[in-house]
Amino acid sequence: MNDTFLKACRGEKTDYTPVWMMRQAGRLIPDYKRITDKYGFLTICRTPELAAEVTIQPVDVLGVDAAIFFSDILTTVAPMGMDLVHSPGKGPSFTNPVRSPEDIERLVVPEPREALAFVVEAQKILVRELENKVPLIGFAGAPFTVAAWMIEGVAQHTFMQTKRLIYNGSRDIHNLMRKVTALTTQYLLAQAEAGAQALMLFDSFAGVLSPQSYLEYNLFYVKRIVAELKATGVPVIYFGLGQHGALGKIKDCGADVIAIDHGLKLADAIAQLGEGVTVQGNLEPFHLFRPRERLAQRTTEVLEQGRAARAHIFNLGHGVPQGAPLDNAKALVEVVHEWR
Amino acid sequence: MNDTFLKACRGEKTDYTPVWMMRQAGRLIPDYKRITDKYGFLTICRTPELAAEVTIQPVDVLGVDAAIFFSDILTTVAPMGMDLVHSPGKGPSFTNPVRSPEDIERLVVPEPREALAFVVEAQKILVRELENKVPLIGFAGAPFTVAAWMIEGVAQHTFMQTKRLIYNGSRDIHNLMRKVTALTTQYLLAQAEAGAQALMLFDSFAGVLSPQSYLEYNLFYVKRIVAELKATGVPVIYFGLGQHGALGKIKDCGADVIAIDHGLKLADAIAQLGEGVTVQGNLEPFHLFRPRERLAQRTTEVLEQGRAARAHIFNLGHGVPQGAPLDNAKALVEVVHEWR
Repeated sequence: MNDTFLKACRGEKTDYTPVWMMRQAGRLIPDYKRITDKYGFLTICRTPELAAEVTIQPVDVLGVDAAIFFSDILTTVAPMGMDLVHSPGKGPSFTNPVRSPEDIERLVVPEPREALAFVVEAQKILVRELENKVPLIGFAGAPFTVAAWMIEGVAQHTFMQTKRLIYNGSRDIHNLMRKVTALTTQYLLAQAEAGAQALMLFDSFAGVLSPQSYLEYNLFYVKRIVAELKATGVPVIYFGLGQHGALGKIKDCGADVIAIDHGLKLADAIAQLGEGVTVQGNLEPFHLFRPRERLAQRTTEVLEQGRAARAHIFNLGHGVPQGAPLDNAKALVEVVHEWR
Repeated sequence: MNDTFLKACRGEKTDYTPVWMMRQAGRLIPDYKRITDKYGFLTICRTPELAAEVTIQPVDVLGVDAAIFFSDILTTVAPMGMDLVHSPGKGPSFTNPVRSPEDIERLVVPEPREALAFVVEAQKILVRELENKVPLIGFAGAPFTVAAWMIEGVAQHTFMQTKRLIYNGSRDIHNLMRKVTALTTQYLLAQAEAGAQALMLFDSFAGVLSPQSYLEYNLFYVKRIVAELKATGVPVIYFGLGQHGALGKIKDCGADVIAIDHGLKLADAIAQLGEGVTVQGNLEPFHLFRPRERLAQRTTEVLEQGRAARAHIFNLGHGVPQGAPLDNAKALVEVVHEWR
């Protein structure tokens, strides 16, 4: 197996910089649209063979150094008693958002090895099928991001309900965070047991809270999860999108790899993170639309900055954009692999 | 007139820290809903007497140290040939978004003293009526933020069309930015002529671009505007929401005051900005929902951090949230005024 990615996670020297792309399946693979049109997004997530198929495709097509399990961060909490729906073009939503102490009270914390057995099953298939290829990254939404989705119900940008719950002077938010954290921890442990070789926490809403509130209501719980995962020996990647004010504290979460969005220069992020962690990132995803030469130039700039870290896993600063040209994505992978 | 705010803008010593709040009219004044329900948002913007009335109310009700002109950042570019509509609950949109070189070509750059005469008129009324109270802050959207609205047409969060226009390898984005910059400059000069005592540039989408692209496609044009405003002697405030990676460069735009959102600790922002500018900000707006004592505590923490700057104008990190309790906003103003 190509273990360049795993070596970089652990901070070991590699022959070249490994690369993969967030949303490398859903946004780049020509076959993906055909498969979702046929089965629907949630069915793919819940059908091991389909999830496995969609996960492997970008490895073959793009030549990336890791496969990321195909799923959605909200799938995890559906069995807590959340009614998850997924409308094409509108994305996911919960029809029964969590707003009151009673709503929080009624949430169950299921055993993910049963309630989410389809994930465990899919990952077992994948680890087998990827054996001679690349490592599999398992993942979950970070608990604050998932909790905020549960509170708001729909995609929005003010986080009005979430912040009102946080600042209402009660312990409600912590009661909710504890439940989501418990499930997330077990869910990630189950993935490590199934054979996932790295685990990533996607904290898409990390930037929603001020640095101080972020430490109290978000990172505190991330730390707990990472501590529980340590015993597995599986490297952990944390991606706190948009949280720039607390970056200096983020490394305290204990993750082996900190993913950096394109809102900061990678060099500045590394300067704040200091020694001791691998960085992942951080090309502005829309550079994929640029003329090939400019794309290569910016890619090289990011690679040069990455030298300052103990190791660098190349990635975009956020997911591949809708409509990004596949040929440019392939060219990007080549540029990274050829760079020394 | 209470000139505490203006002194702070210029970096002079003041007896106490001045305070005002973004969206202090639309989100806090009990009478505002009655007035919008009766006339509609755009009619208020375009009727000098109504705009003046809504601008003055928070000064009397809250006891803040500055009035901010009541308007919308998109009103400015409607006379360029943009069809602006404003639906209650949905906010503003343009029904004819700018997507092609031809769309950019057909945009006119009107003389704002004629096309936006209602703003000049309203500000003349206001300067008279505020004579014995507080200074009037005029404002405009920063050109990138306004251009991105023109390109996207509607509120969204991916900025897909904007980024594709930026990275398509053409000069299209610069052609658009030049036109919007030309109008914005004249619009702000017209406000200074009408008597506005400070001018603010709201760059709500400053954080959308990576630091490097921000310097090239956004801040470059802000600098031009600020340079043109220098001759008026009116202090300029720049608010680049969410742009944390280029903060060290933002002060180069030449503004007297840099407004800081709540995504950074004020102390960290001041450390990056260095000497020579006044800071404005940066309490997380949802603290307004907190129990009074906690609100006071966090307000004091921000005030303490502000000591490191040459001067500090207290404000929120973003606009007042919908539904924020008026009594807490009043209490906040008192805490700031009493602090030494």
